[in-house]
This record gives sequence, structure tokens and C-alpha cells, in this order.
Amino acid sequence: MPRKLHLNAFLMNTGHHEASWRLPESDPYAHVSLEHYVRLARTAERGTFDSLFLADGPQLWNTVAQRPAGALEPLTLLTALATATEHIGLIATASTSYNSPYNLARRFASLDIISGGRAGWNVVTTAGAEAARNFGLDAEPAHAERYARAAEFLDVALKLWDSWEDDTIVADKAAGVWGDDARIHPPRHRGTYFSVEGALNVPRGPQGYPLLVQAGSSEDGKRFAARYAEAVFTAQQTLADAQDFYADLKARTAAAGRDPEHLKVLPGIVPVIGSTEAEALARERQLEDHIVHEHGVRRLEELLRLGPGSLVLDAELPDGLPSEDAIEGAKSRYTLIVELARRERLTVRQLIGRLGGGRGHLTFAGTPEQVADTIERWFSLGAADGFNIMPPVLPSGLDTFVDHVVPILRARGLLRTEYGPRQTLRERYGLPRPANQHLTGVPALV
Amino acid sequence: MPRKLHLNAFLMNTGHHEASWRLPESDPYAHVSLEHYVRLARTAERGTFDSLFLADGPQLWNTVAQRPAGALEPLTLLTALATATEHIGLIATASTSYNSPYNLARRFASLDIISGGRAGWNVVTTAGAEAARNFGLDAEPAHAERYARAAEFLDVALKLWDSWEDDTIVADKAAGVWGDDARIHPPRHRGTYFSVEGALNVPRGPQGYPLLVQAGSSEDGKRFAARYAEAVFTAQQTLADAQDFYADLKARTAAAGRDPEHLKVLPGIVPVIGSTEAEALARERQLEDHIVHEHGVRRLEELLRLGPGSLVLDAELPDGLPSEDAIEGAKSRYTLIVELARRERLTVRQLIGRLGGGRGHLTFAGTPEQVADTIERWFSLGAADGFNIMPPVLPSGLDTFVDHVVPILRARGLLRTEYGPRQTLRERYGLPRPANQHLTGVPALV
Ligand SMILES: Cc1cc2nc3c(=O)[nH]c(=O)nc-3n(C[C@H](O)[C@H](O)[C@H](O)COP(=O)(O)O)c2cc1C
Ligand SMILES: Cc1cc2nc3c(=O)[nH]c(=O)nc-3n(C[C@H](O)[C@H](O)[C@H](O)COP(=O)(O)O)c2cc1C
Repeated sequence: MPRKLHLNAFLMNTGHHEASWRLPESDPYAHVSLEHYVRLARTAERGTFDSLFLADGPQLWNTVAQRPAGALEPLTLLTALATATEHIGLIATASTSYNSPYNLARRFASLDIISGGRAGWNVVTTAGAEAARNFGLDAEPAHAERYARAAEFLDVALKLWDSWEDDTIVADKAAGVWGDDARIHPPRHRGTYFSVEGALNVPRGPQGYPLLVQAGSSEDGKRFAARYAEAVFTAQQTLADAQDFYADLKARTAAAGRDPEHLKVLPGIVPVIGSTEAEALARERQLEDHIVHEHGVRRLEELLRLGPGSLVLDAELPDGLPSEDAIEGAKSRYTLIVELARRERLTVRQLIGRLGGGRGHLTFAGTPEQVADTIERWFSLGAADGFNIMPPVLPSGLDTFVDHVVPILRARGLLRTEYGPRQTLRERYGLPRPANQHLTGVPALV
Repeated sequence: MPRKLHLNAFLMNTGHHEASWRLPESDPYAHVSLEHYVRLARTAERGTFDSLFLADGPQLWNTVAQRPAGALEPLTLLTALATATEHIGLIATASTSYNSPYNLARRFASLDIISGGRAGWNVVTTAGAEAARNFGLDAEPAHAERYARAAEFLDVALKLWDSWEDDTIVADKAAGVWGDDARIHPPRHRGTYFSVEGALNVPRGPQGYPLLVQAGSSEDGKRFAARYAEAVFTAQQTLADAQDFYADLKARTAAAGRDPEHLKVLPGIVPVIGSTEAEALARERQLEDHIVHEHGVRRLEELLRLGPGSLVLDAELPDGLPSEDAIEGAKSRYTLIVELARRERLTVRQLIGRLGGGRGHLTFAGTPEQVADTIERWFSLGAADGFNIMPPVLPSGLDTFVDHVVPILRARGLLRTEYGPRQTLRERYGLPRPANQHLTGVPALV
């Protein structure tokens, strides 16, 4: 079977472009509209995407004046979407820094059962002091400590998901025996960050455990991905960078003793699509024209950990910015932005325009053919196993992608034409169902 | 308008009788079956119930040999049920001892939005060391401390739910102004158990905040209910006890400065229904015959905090049991069980039979007329504002109740015959939508 492209629909209220909500057709209440998300999920399913995805952070960002703020909690929203769809995978972001393993493992197991094996977890450590202060901390925990906690969180979660063997339930009504106690394995975990004694109170789900996704690209982030992730979201600006990242991550996965085929790399792409190139560029220009630059400057300053007034709109970034080592927040995103600005000698205004569409992801304006060409090139040249599709405007951008780019990808044999029989999310990504660590003797890894 | 009965359907896998799973018609996988719960929810909606309810605890109880163990996480399951129903309220249990206010407040706000204002929260403090050990503690926190934490949890949650004024979103596309920052009110809470700085990242929901339900009947529990609860679930064995409880709770609510009409008291009833009295008693006997008494003894010993072997199946409870003061778990349930056994001079075997159906709730075997009579008597004699209906066997027990008891209650003018226009859960219970504390100057209370 020829290698197939994996497509993930990254859904975000009115779209990934920060000014998308200002377009005449956009619903400024989209972020709290179940109907909006149901429509998007069904469109992605019409496009035979592998999965859809919701980002998240437990804090209210910036000021609400700037643009739509807040979101329905992703696992909750995805549960509602599970009942409105049949085939598509459902990936929710949740933080290892601000959750308890027992509660979170249970919620993912519940979604996995309710959705018939379609749950995925984008594991994040959550940068920023804003989130920390909502959970009793005064400051953001150090980057390395967040990742250490994340690793222990995953170890505990895997123990919890394996705490029921698949055939625990015997349901012998005559004898009055419902389950086999010998097949229950309480974690009895005592670690640095967590002590978790008892077995999960949900049986093992259809997938064993949810598809594990990761999106950090710092040194710690890549090490974590090589150990635990089955899919990796990443922001890459150039084919060469994406190839390097891809090769590096696959090599690290092999070095961790895993099959590199069992980790899928999905760069993000923000496709601004027009029926002609000129139309696409006009669309891009329309979006840029709606950016409020004063807001963008302040947000960029925050991202670069600079005080208010440090950046000048029509000048380049100042010299002497700290190196990634000094950043405790989102390390790899910091480096990507600074390098992009330096490489292309962008003014702050231009940089904001570039980031407006995709916050560091590849923004690409062109015809459906051109978008398909870029996707195929990255896919065939060792830069991607698939893509994280981030429409700049929603719902229209996803409609356009599904109606115009998907048929081309199908015609080229890169994408399935229909789902076929029901599959789990893990099956869609070509991953095996993990064996139970209590039967194999080693912690589950694929 | 004559006073109407409130009905809540307490759903629990194959039913409230501990032996229900052993009946030929019962699905031993009901606890993880979305279809099962969808069917139940739609039946309750056919019976124009006000709400349905899921109990919960973050631990795996007992041994899985005894009976179905584990459950889908309630907020997750209720989100799926929200999409399968239109009118019925959706009440999930969640623990104040083992959650963070920010995460939990957000999940309830999300469910409230997704369900169109039908979310309710059964606030519990979670008894038992099993749960504590799943969250890094060695032992159960003391009863008084759990309630102190619960009160602060509620104060923080109310601040979070009020952190957006209702008209925060202005959506001025032309000016590029989405929201009014002056209408965002971060809690800036620093307390004994929690520090929560920032505003919630979900707007205020249709109900302002979810219906607040409470079910603890100890001294601390009743004080908490009088302060925060809008509906109270309770286990009462006799009309006189229920009347005392009802009067006490209403008086406490008034003393707390609230309208006693704004707290609804809902005793539980386990109706074993037959078309004749003989048939109902035969049904009850059939269930009792399926109880495995060795399991029941051990569970009763645990409930009474006794070591294995302390109880003798065909003898009464031993003398010298501790008083409620010494119990750190579920205080009021402990007292209820001990008093029931003493009052009726029950042997351990008989007590297990009585508890098998309802774990302390009123178990009532009779015809539909007799069930309706009991309900009407308690309702009209100041013992109840409605009932928590706990069918011993599911789905059949709920079908029978809706098909045979509901028509009688309707014919007597006690229950609505149809829902009419959509309402929020709070409206169904005759409660006002709470004003925002930042507009009234006082923390929201109804
Ligand atoms: C496509 C994509 C989606 C992401 N979604 C989230 C998210 O929802 N929440 C979050 O806290 N971080 C998110 N991140 C950020 C990463 O998880 C990570 O925190 C960030 O890349 C910095 O990690 P690093 O310091 O290891 O580079 C996302 C990153 C990418 C590429
Ligand atoms: C109908 C009903 C349902 C209950 N559901 C739960 C539950 O789901 N989880 C829980 O921990 N306790 C539950 N309880 C127990 C109470 O919340 C409370 O813990 C118990 O009554 C002991 O509280 P007390 O010590 O204040 O009496 C329930 C009680 C009743 C009457």
C-alpha cells in the first residue's frame, strides 16, 4: 500500500488568523457555539481527515478587547462532537502541569469509550505565569521541571490505563462473579510529583490508551516526544528546517528503542486559498489589513519577554535578545520567531503580519493546486507524515480546503477517498493497539 | 399555579439494587455503554423529569468480583447525553476534595453552554481513604476540613463563574474591539486552600452557574447546604424523619438569609413496582435472592469501620459501635444505617437485604398507585419538594415508573404533562438566574 498522508484539522473559533473574527462572515460567538464546531467536525469528516484537534490553556489570555478569548473546555467539547461524528479522531489538549493523573486518565478513557476509540491527547506542559497563578503557584515552574513532571505524569497515566486487563470483566451471573480481581493492577505509584495508589475506575478503552500527541520542539520537548509521542505537531517555516526536524525526531525515536514509523510528524500549514494566485494574495492582504498592530506589538513583546514599549513597529527586532536557554516558556516557538525575523529581515510590523496567520506555522497563499503541491513536496521529501491543517478563517477556510484541495490529494493517491469500516484513531494513524504492561512486563510503548 | 413535584432520575448502570446486574435481562457492560445511558435519559425525558443525575467517586470501590465497578466520568457522559436530549437537566457529581476550582468551574461552564443551560453539580467532599490515596494523600482528610475546603472551593467557583459579566462581548468588528475589558473581574483569590488569580476562560453560561446540589446530611453537611445548595438529595427512611429533615433544612436556609423556596429537598426512593402488590413483593424477593451475602457483610463492615469478621450474618449489629462524631467518612449515612438496624431489630442479613436496594434510601415495593400515594403523601405533608427516583433495575425500572407511575402523578396534577418551551435546569426547579456578584456587590446566592 502506498504511503498515505495523515491530515489533522486544527479547529480554532473563527480561524487561525488573529483578525479572522473581524471579517463580515465571521461569528464572534463561534468560540462558544456547539453548532459551529459540529459543522467544522462534519466538514473535516467529509474530507476524510484522520483527526481534528483543539488547543488549550487554563487561563484567559491577553485582554478580551483584542479578539475572541476563552474556549469551551476541549475534552467536553470533543465529547459532544463524538456524538455528532462517526469516524474522525478527536484530539484534546490537556496540561500535565495543572491536572491530576487520576482525573485526567479517567476522562480520556471515558472519551475513548464514548467515541468508540477515537480519543487523542495533545500532552502539553503549559507555558506562562498566567496559568500557574490559577493553580496556587506564584510563577511558572521551570521548563525542565515541567517536562520532568510531564514524564512522571505519563508514566502514571500509562499505569492507570493498564490497571484493568482487557478481559477483566467475566460477568458470570450464575456464580455472582462480575470481574476477575487478579486482572486488576493498582499502580501503587510513589514518585517525585505524584502518589497514586489505586486502579482506575474505568475499564481499559478500545485503544488501550488515547493516541498520544506532543507539540514541544525544545530539546526537552523532543526528548519527551521520542519517548512518549505517537504524533507530533510542529511549526516549521522552511522545507529544510522541517526535514532536519523530521530526521532528528525519527532518529531519537529509534534511539529510544521504538519503531520510528510509530511516531508521525505533522507540521502545521495555514493555507490561504484562492482560485487564482491573485485571489489568494488578496485574501491574505484582506486579513492583514484587519490586524490591530498595537495589540500585535504588545503580544509580541510578551512572547519575547520584553517590557511594554520595547519594540518599534517599523524597525527590526532589537539586538541583544536572550537566547532560548534563558526562556522558561515556550522555548522552540521563541527561537522560531526570532530566527524568522532575522532571516528575512522583517520589521516588527511585517513579523506581526507573518505571525498573524499562524503564530509561526507555515502560512501559504496560493491556489488549491499550489497548496497540494507544497503538501506533496514536504510529504515526499522527508519533511512530514502528514499535516496539521490550520485554516486562517473558519468555517470557510476548511470548506475550501475540503472542496478544492482534498480532491486533488485524492486524485494523486495521497489521501483516502472514503473511511471504509470504522477504525480507532490509532488505526487511522497506522499504530498498533498497545499491549498491557502487566502482560508484557514492560511499560507500554509503541 | 399549584405546587408541582420535582423529579430527578438517579441513573446507575444496571440499577440501584446491588444484585441487579445478575438478572437475566441486565447488561453487565451497562456502566460503559453510551447507548444504555442515552436510552435511560430519553425515557426520563419522556417522563418529563426535571433532571437526571450521576453519582461518582474518584476511586475503584471494593473488588470487581462483587458487582459492576467503575463508571464513565460523569461530566463526560452528561456532555454526550446533552446532545441526545433537549429538555432534561444534567447533574454530575464532582468532588471538591480532589479537583481544582479553575478546571472544574470551567468544565461545568462548558457543559452549561453546550447543553443550553441544563448543567447541575452535585457537590461532594468524597469520603474514604481510597480516593485520598489516588491524589497523593495517605489518609482521608478530616470531615470538618473537607467541608471547610468545599466552602472555599464554592466561593472561588462562584467568583470564577462571575468573572465575566453577561455583556462582556461587544463584537465591534469595525473598531476591532471584541470584548469590554472593564467587564472582566479576575477573582484574585488568596485563601486557605486555594489561590486563583485570573478570570475564567469561558464566558458566563446560560444559567450564570450550574444548579448547585448537595447530599450530605451531617451537621457540617446541612450547614453547607443551607449556604450553597439549591437542591438537596437525602436518604430518609420514615416520613417523620423526612419531615424533620425538611423543616430543619428550610429553617437553616432562611437563617442563612436565603429564600427557603430556593432550596429543594429531594429524598430518594427505590420503587420496586409490580402490577399487584404480590408481584412487587415477588420482584423484591427475586432481587434479594441474588445478593451474595459474604460480599454484603464485608461491605457493611467497611461502612461501619469494622475489621473483617466483626459481623455475624444472622445476628444483630454488635453493641458499642462508635458514635457519628468518631466517623470521618459519610457521617449521616452511618447514623441512618445503625438507627435503621436498631429500630427494626434487623439481623445483619436482613439489614443487607434492606440496604441492597437503596443503600439507606426508602425502598418501597408496591403497585404504581401505592408508589404514587407515597410520593404524594411525602410531598403534601412537608417531607419533600420532589423525589430522587432510584430504580432498583435499569432500564426496566425506569420504564415502569414512566409508563405507570408518571401518568398517575400527572392525572393528580402533581407533575407537568409536557415540558413546553425550553427552559434552563434552574428554571425547571423554579429558581432565579443568579445576578453577578460584581453588579450586586454581594456573592451570588439565591
Ligand atoms: C500545533 C501546535 C499546537 C500547540 N498547542 C498547544 C496548546 O494547545 N497548549 C499549549 O500549552 N501549548 C501548545 N503548543 C505548544 C507546545 O506544546 C509547546 O509548549 C511549545 O511548542 C513550547 O514547547 P517547547 O518549550 O518544548 O518548545 C502547541 C504547539 C504546536 C506546534
Ligand atoms: C442521593 C445521594 C447521592 C449521593 N451521591 C454521592 C456521590 O456521588 N459521591 C459521593 O462522594 N457522595 C455522595 N453522596 C454522599 C453525600 O455527598 C455525603 O458524602 C454523605 O451523605 C455523607 O455526608 P455527611 O458526612 O455530611 O453526612 C450521596 C448522598 C445521597 C443522599
